Amino acid sequence: MNIRYPNGKKYTAPQINHKEPSQIEYGKRGMSLEEDLNATNEYYRQAGIAVIHKKPTPIQIVQVDYPKRSSAVIREAYFRQPSTTDYNGVYKGRYIDFEAKETKNNTSFPLKNVHEHQIEHIKAVIKQQGITFIIIRFGLTDEIFLLEGVHLLSFWNRMVDGGRKSISKEELTEVGYSISIGFQPRIDYLKIIDRLYLS
Amino acid sequence: MNIRYPNGKKYTAPQINHKEPSQIEYGKRGMSLEEDLNATNEYYRQAGIAVIHKKPTPIQIVQVDYPKRSSAVIREAYFRQPSTTDYNGVYKGRYIDFEAKETKNNTSFPLKNVHEHQIEHIKAVIKQQGITFIIIRFGLTDEIFLLEGVHLLSFWNRMVDGGRKSISKEELTEVGYSISIGFQPRIDYLKIIDRLYLS
Repeated sequence: MNIRYPNGKKYTAPQINHKEPSQIEYGKRGMSLEEDLNATNEYYRQAGIAVIHKKPTPIQIVQVDYPKRSSAVIREAYFRQPSTTDYNGVYKGRYIDFEAKETKNNTSFPLKNVHEHQIEHIKAVIKQQGITFIIIRFGLTDEIFLLEGVHLLSFWNRMVDGGRKSISKEELTEVGYSISIGFQPRIDYLKIIDRLYLS
Repeated sequence: MNIRYPNGKKYTAPQINHKEPSQIEYGKRGMSLEEDLNATNEYYRQAGIAVIHKKPTPIQIVQVDYPKRSSAVIREAYFRQPSTTDYNGVYKGRYIDFEAKETKNNTSFPLKNVHEHQIEHIKAVIKQQGITFIIIRFGLTDEIFLLEGVHLLSFWNRMVDGGRKSISKEELTEVGYSISIGFQPRIDYLKIIDRLYLS
């Protein structure tokens, strides 16, 4: 079985916060959507606003070595396809669940970035009255949109029915919500969730 | 049988669920708490009752190989300490969050099985009105208890204040809830959550 990491893309280690001096100077520039969301969630947790985490990447472990006097070393393992969305947690008693995706496309978000099992997961979460959405960043222009799960499902169904395989930026502007990048938190998506579900 | 591959390495089978006939015959015997809970959550999801998953084990990846025409292979990685509990999800709109622990101890549950950052996580989830608990299995007698997070915190604080470093089975019987093992679902913990929070 050949499982390829999302879109067959190479793994780039995001975890360790190694900043080049130039990156520090430019502040928010050069940060990935994942880094920005991790910083946002860290801020939410520290401030006692919400408890939302990114799930670890699922790994299929095949071989582990146990060297004497030191910790176990994984020597053979493979990336597995995640069966859920990447982020979840709790905010004011409500279950929060979302996926985050970046695209280099300038005019639309290609739906091939979303996997069918994630669509199934979103459907199941909606059925359980959870709050579900996707955060999309257009990398070239640094525009960020939040799109509710129910709308994502509509666009997905349009594709399944033979329609277009992407969501245009106009459509995102119409049914989604634009998020401007701030300092702290960087991507204040809960402000939109407040407006939509909790006020 | 020890099969040695050309590279001289011992082959260790991947973690696929291979059941010996004897295990199938005995049904639930020999299953770990994690396997039972995964089967339970799978049942909940299939039946449309709840969407609850175990989080993947967090791994620190150090080196990845990209062989031609096949998928990326992780060649050096280490297990990391989880910063949250293991299971979370949504049930009837409520956020569910729990940890599962087995002990070989017969009379009490040693609190060293729980990490301080998990305690901090449980506190934060309670503050966000999430439903949080721990499921404890006594391996020798196959007794299973559900203990709400707020009680776990009390026992933890007793230890921090210099008191006993474990929760006795009597205490678990008193403030916790015994779960009998069933066929489907095997560990029907949501029945208790229903009674406590949703009825």
